[in-house]
Amino acid sequence: MISFESDYIAGAHPKVLEKLMETNMEALGGYGTDKYCESAKEKIKAACGCPGAEVHFLVGGTQTNALVISSMLKEYEGVIAAKTGHVSLHEAGAIEYTGHKVLEIAQENGKIVPELLKEYLDTFYMDENREHMVFPGMVYISHPTEYGTLYNKKELEQISDICQGYEIPLYLDGARLGYGIMSRETDVTMEDIAKCCDVFYIGGTKVGALCGEAVVFTKGNAPKHFMTIVKQKGALLAKGRVLGVQFDTLFTDGLYFDISRHAIDMAEQLKGMLKEKGYQFYMESPTNQQFVIVENGKLSELKKSVAVSFWEKYDDAHTVIRLATSWSTTQEDMDILKEVL
Amino acid sequence: MISFESDYIAGAHPKVLEKLMETNMEALGGYGTDKYCESAKEKIKAACGCPGAEVHFLVGGTQTNALVISSMLKEYEGVIAAKTGHVSLHEAGAIEYTGHKVLEIAQENGKIVPELLKEYLDTFYMDENREHMVFPGMVYISHPTEYGTLYNKKELEQISDICQGYEIPLYLDGARLGYGIMSRETDVTMEDIAKCCDVFYIGGTKVGALCGEAVVFTKGNAPKHFMTIVKQKGALLAKGRVLGVQFDTLFTDGLYFDISRHAIDMAEQLKGMLKEKGYQFYMESPTNQQFVIVENGKLSELKKSVAVSFWEKYDDAHTVIRLATSWSTTQEDMDILKEVL
Amino acid sequence: MISFESDYIAGAHPKVLEKLMETNMEALGGYGTDKYCESAKEKIKAACGCPGAEVHFLVGGTQTNALVISSMLKEYEGVIAAKTGHVSLHEAGAIEYTGHKVLEIAQENGKIVPELLKEYLDTFYMDENREHMVFPGMVYISHPTEYGTLYNKKELEQISDICQGYEIPLYLDGARLGYGIMSRETDVTMEDIAKCCDVFYIGGTKVGALCGEAVVFTKGNAPKHFMTIVKQKGALLAKGRVLGVQFDTLFTDGLYFDISRHAIDMAEQLKGMLKEKGYQFYMESPTNQQFVIVENGKLSELKKSVAVSFWEKYDDAHTVIRLATSWSTTQEDMDILKEVL
Amino acid sequence: MISFESDYIAGAHPKVLEKLMETNMEALGGYGTDKYCESAKEKIKAACGCPGAEVHFLVGGTQTNALVISSMLKEYEGVIAAKTGHVSLHEAGAIEYTGHKVLEIAQENGKIVPELLKEYLDTFYMDENREHMVFPGMVYISHPTEYGTLYNKKELEQISDICQGYEIPLYLDGARLGYGIMSRETDVTMEDIAKCCDVFYIGGTKVGALCGEAVVFTKGNAPKHFMTIVKQKGALLAKGRVLGVQFDTLFTDGLYFDISRHAIDMAEQLKGMLKEKGYQFYMESPTNQQFVIVENGKLSELKKSVAVSFWEKYDDAHTVIRLATSWSTTQEDMDILKEVL
Repeated sequence: MISFESDYIAGAHPKVLEKLMETNMEALGGYGTDKYCESAKEKIKAACGCPGAEVHFLVGGTQTNALVISSMLKEYEGVIAAKTGHVSLHEAGAIEYTGHKVLEIAQENGKIVPELLKEYLDTFYMDENREHMVFPGMVYISHPTEYGTLYNKKELEQISDICQGYEIPLYLDGARLGYGIMSRETDVTMEDIAKCCDVFYIGGTKVGALCGEAVVFTKGNAPKHFMTIVKQKGALLAKGRVLGVQFDTLFTDGLYFDISRHAIDMAEQLKGMLKEKGYQFYMESPTNQQFVIVENGKLSELKKSVAVSFWEKYDDAHTVIRLATSWSTTQEDMDILKEVL
Repeated sequence: MISFESDYIAGAHPKVLEKLMETNMEALGGYGTDKYCESAKEKIKAACGCPGAEVHFLVGGTQTNALVISSMLKEYEGVIAAKTGHVSLHEAGAIEYTGHKVLEIAQENGKIVPELLKEYLDTFYMDENREHMVFPGMVYISHPTEYGTLYNKKELEQISDICQGYEIPLYLDGARLGYGIMSRETDVTMEDIAKCCDVFYIGGTKVGALCGEAVVFTKGNAPKHFMTIVKQKGALLAKGRVLGVQFDTLFTDGLYFDISRHAIDMAEQLKGMLKEKGYQFYMESPTNQQFVIVENGKLSELKKSVAVSFWEKYDDAHTVIRLATSWSTTQEDMDILKEVL
Repeated sequence: MISFESDYIAGAHPKVLEKLMETNMEALGGYGTDKYCESAKEKIKAACGCPGAEVHFLVGGTQTNALVISSMLKEYEGVIAAKTGHVSLHEAGAIEYTGHKVLEIAQENGKIVPELLKEYLDTFYMDENREHMVFPGMVYISHPTEYGTLYNKKELEQISDICQGYEIPLYLDGARLGYGIMSRETDVTMEDIAKCCDVFYIGGTKVGALCGEAVVFTKGNAPKHFMTIVKQKGALLAKGRVLGVQFDTLFTDGLYFDISRHAIDMAEQLKGMLKEKGYQFYMESPTNQQFVIVENGKLSELKKSVAVSFWEKYDDAHTVIRLATSWSTTQEDMDILKEVL
Repeated sequence: MISFESDYIAGAHPKVLEKLMETNMEALGGYGTDKYCESAKEKIKAACGCPGAEVHFLVGGTQTNALVISSMLKEYEGVIAAKTGHVSLHEAGAIEYTGHKVLEIAQENGKIVPELLKEYLDTFYMDENREHMVFPGMVYISHPTEYGTLYNKKELEQISDICQGYEIPLYLDGARLGYGIMSRETDVTMEDIAKCCDVFYIGGTKVGALCGEAVVFTKGNAPKHFMTIVKQKGALLAKGRVLGVQFDTLFTDGLYFDISRHAIDMAEQLKGMLKEKGYQFYMESPTNQQFVIVENGKLSELKKSVAVSFWEKYDDAHTVIRLATSWSTTQEDMDILKEVL
C-alpha cells in the first residue's frame, strides 16, 4: 500500500529530526526566546530579502490564519477570500469564531481575479447602506491555492495595488509555499511575495516540519504585543525551540527549497503518468497537488493499493480525487504507483 | 415633501403612545416582570394559536437575530440563510460577531428554494471532510423577505420538513410579519408560522411600535436562562414595560393586523399607480415594499419631492429604488405622490 | 402599596412623553440621523462645556458599558474596575462576552482608591511575566457608584492623572449621573467629568427617560465607524428619534438637572426619616440610593406595604436593603412611607 | 551556567525522540486518526483505570484550558478558579477571550478551600439578583497548583461532592500531573483523579514531551463534535502522530511515572540543600517547584551561575524566586548547584 493522500503523511525531514535530537538537552529559554528561534528568523528574513520583516512562529495553518486575520482586522471589518479559500470552507469557522466575517467572492481556478476584487471594493464603497455592512478590511489569498494553482507575478502585483489603493493589507496563506516557489511554471519568488504582501506565512507542516508555520510581517506592521495575543489564543508554545530548531534547519543551506523541488519533480512525473494513462484532469496544477476525475468503480479499485483523497463528487458516476506528492515521496512510491495505474 | 423611504419614518401608532401615557406613572417591576409584559405574552400566544409557546421581548431586529441564532446554535454550527438575507448582508456582521458563520445559499426572489436547501444539506452530510467544516445548525428565512416577497404555505411546510429531517430548527425573521400576514396574496397565517417554525419573531419596530420585537419559541425550546443571556448581550431593558405596553396594545382587538392591512391597501394603491405610470418593477412584491427601476435623471427629479430608498445600482443609467408604505402612510401621502409621479 | 424599589419603577418624565407624542407623526430619517438627535447632541455638548465632544445614543446601561469598553480596548487588554462595579458583578458577564477580562481591584465604599489603582498599575509593569497577563487598558468607575457614593473632585483628578500617566482611558459610568451632579455634597460638575474622563455616559433610563443613555467621547477619541460597531452589536435603533427626542427634552431648560434635584430632595427627606426612626445605615450615601440594615422579621413586615430591594445578606438575622428615590417619587409617597416606618 | 528556571528548559525525553525518529517515515492518516494516537489513548485509559473515558490530544496548556472550559460551559456560565489559578492570572485572558468569566475565589496555598467553594455557591443561589450575574458552571483546580502544592484525597472528594451537588463539572489542570502523582507526600492516584473529576488533562509539555497534553473526559461527557471544535479554535494538528507517538511512549512501561519520580527525587535533594543553607521557603511544596525568598543582593549574585525564575516581589529588599526540577535535571546539575549555594 502506498499513499498519495496528502503532503502530511510522513513526519519531518530527517535533517530536521536530527537537529531536534542534537539540541535536545540544551537548556533554553521558553516561549520563543531561544537562540534557534533567533537564528531561524534571521535566515527567513534573508530568504525573503526583507531585513526589516518581523517573523513569528506558530504551530498550524488554521491557527495562523485566525491569529493573523483577527489581530489585523478592526472589529467592524471582514476578510475577502475566494469562495474556495481554506478560510472560507475548511477551517470549521475559525475566522468567524474570532468575530469576523469571511467575505466570499467568486474565484477562477481557486484564485481571486483582480478585476472582480476591484469591482467588489468599488461597489462596496458606492453602496449608500455600507455603514450597515461588514467593511472589507483585508484580502486573503492562498499560494498555491487549495487547487494547486498559482498567481503569476502580474496578478500578484495587481492585487497588491488594489489593496494599497483601498489601504487594506494583503495576506498570503503559504501553507505550501515551497511547492509554489519551486514550481517549474512560476515567475513569483519569495522576494516578490515579501514585496507584494503585508503579511504571509511560510508553511512548515506540509514542507518538511513536524509542525510549524512562520509568519512574516513585511512592513513594520506586526500587531503590538503580538506574543500576548498569541498566548491569549492558546497558540504560544512553551518550548518555542521546537519551532525554532525546525525552521532554522529548513532555512539552512536552502533545505526548504531543495525538498520542495523534489516534490515538484515527483509531481511532474505523476502528471506525466496520469496523462499517459488517459486520466482526465479536473484542473491544471503546476504544483504538488494533482486533481483528476475518476469513475467510481475504478476509484474503488484504485483505493485497494493507493491511498488518495476524496475531493468532491463530480457527477453520479465520477469523483474528483487528489493525489499529492511531497518532500517525502520516493521514486519507489512513483514506480509502484505506475504499476497500479 | 412626502416620504416613502421606509416603514420606520414615523413614531408609534397613536394608540400605542396613548397607552404608554396612560400607564406612565404606575410603579412596575423591572426587566419584563410587569403585568403588561405578561398580558402581551398571553395575547400573542393566542394570536399564534400556540398556548405552549414562550414569548420574549427584545428591542430591535438585528439584536433579535443575533440573540436567537447564537443562543440556539452549538458552537460548531452556523446558520443557513439566503445570500440576500438580512443576516447575510445588512447587519454589519452581527452573527459572525457571536462566533457563528452565516452559510449563504442561492436564493430566488429573496427566498430560499426548498430543493436547493435539501441539496445543500445532503451534500454537506456526504462530504468526507465535513468535520473540518461549519455544521449547518439552523435555517433562517425572512417573511416577508428583504424584497417584499412571501413564502407560500407549501414552501414553508417543505422547508420545515427538511429542517425536521435534519433535526435543525427553522427560524423566521418577521420584522415585517404583519405586512406578510395581511398581504392579499398569501395563504400563510400566524398559526401556520407557529406550526412550521421552531422560533420566529413578530416585528414591532416596523409595524406600529416605537421599537420592539416579540420572539416566540413555539416548541418548549427556549434556551435555559434566556433572560441572563439577554442581559449578557446588553439587550435587557430595565423598563421592560416599554415593550410590554406596546405589544399589549398592538395585540388588543387586532390592532396589529388592522394597521398592517392598511399598509397593504396603501401598497396596492401604490402598485397600481406605478404600473399606470409605466414604471418597471424590479421584482413582484405582494407586501408593503415595492421595488422599481428608475432612470437616474428621473430619480434626481423624483427625489426633490419624495423621499425614497436607494436599493442598488441596476446599470450605469438606472437605479433600483424602494418605496415603502406602512401603518403611518396616509391617503394624503398617496394623493401627493400621484401628482408627483 | 408604595414603591422605593428602584429608580426605574415609572415610565418617562411627562414632558418627555409629551414631546414623543408631539413629534410622533413627523417623517424622520432612521438610525439617529434625525434633527432631534442632532439637537440633543448639541445641548449635551453645551451642558458638558465640551464643544469638541462626540455624542452617541444607546438604549441601556449594560449595552453601553459593553460597547464602549470593547470598542476602546485592544484585544490583549482588560478593564480595571472595583470588585463591586456594575461591570464586575451585575451584567451577567457582558464584558467578558466581548472577550475582555474585568480586572477587579479592591474598593472602599464602592470606589476605586487612587493609591491602590496606582499600585496595581506599577506592580503590573514591574512583573517580568506581564506578557502572559491581561494588560490593563482602561479604568472604569461609576459615579454615583453602585452604593450611591461619589468621588470628590480631587479623587477624580488623581485617577485621571494616573490614567494619563499610563496612557489608558478613564471611563465613567453615569447611569445615575444626574443624581450625582445634583447631590448636596458634591464638588464635581459635568464639566469636571468631561475634563477628567476620556469617555462617560449620561444615564437616561434612571433619570427621566423610558430608556436611553448618551455616550460622550470627550477627546476626539470616538472609535472609527462607531455606528457600524453599534449595529454589529445589535444596539442600533431604527427609530433613533426615540432617543433623540427624549434627550433633547431632558436637556432643554435644565430638565435633567431639575428632576435630579427633586430626587435628591426626596432622598434627603428619606435619610432624615430613617435616621429619626433609628435605622442603621449600611453606608453613607449622598445620592438617591439609601442602604439600611434591617432585622429580617421587620423586613417581612415592611414589605407588606413598601416595595424595597434586597441588596445582600448582612448576617443570619439581618439583611441589607436599598430604598431609592427618583424623579418620579412624590411627597405623597414620602408621607405614606413615614407612616409605615 | 546551570538552569533551574523551569520544567521546560529541555526538549523531550530521549525515548520520546527516538520513537519519533523510528516512526518518522511511516505514512499515517492525519488529524489524530493514526494508530499511535489510538494506542496512546488505550494506555492512558488503562493508567487512569477508566476504560470508558474519551481521550483527546492537544498541543499546550492554555489552549487546553480554553478549549475544555469553553466547550463545556453554557454561554451564561463562568468557571470558578482560585485567584492564583493559571486561568485567572497567567493565560493573557484566554478564557475571557472565549466569552466566559473566570469567577475568582480566595485560595490557601494556591488551593481552593472546599468550605469556601460551598459558601460561594450557596450564596450565589440565594442571591435574588442572580439572573443578572454569571452562573458558576464549572470548577477549575490545578494539581499540582501554581505553587507546587497538592490537594489530598479528602479535599478532592469534598470538592467533587460539592460540584455534584450543584451539578457542575470539576476540571483538573494537570500540567504537572506526573510530579503530583509521584510526590512522596500525596495520597492521590490517577484513578482517584479520574473518579473525582469530570475532565482533566495529563501534561506532556512539562513532563517529557516536546509539546502535548492529553485531555481525559471521564464520564462519557466529551462535547459532541469535539474534533470540529478543536479545529475551529485552531488547535487541530495535521500531523496528530506527533502527539500520539509521544504519549504512546510516555505511557509505555510507566515511563511517565518513572521520569516524574526522578524529578521528585531531585526536588527533595534540592529542598534539603536549601534548608541546609538556611533559605527561607515561601511555601511548603511537595512537588518539583520550590519557592524561596531571597535577599535581592544575593539573588543578583546567584543569577550569575544559576538561572532561576522571578516569581513575585516579597518586599523592597527581597524577592520570591522559583527553582524547578524536572525529568531532565541531572545529578551533575545538583552538584553544581550545591557548590553555588
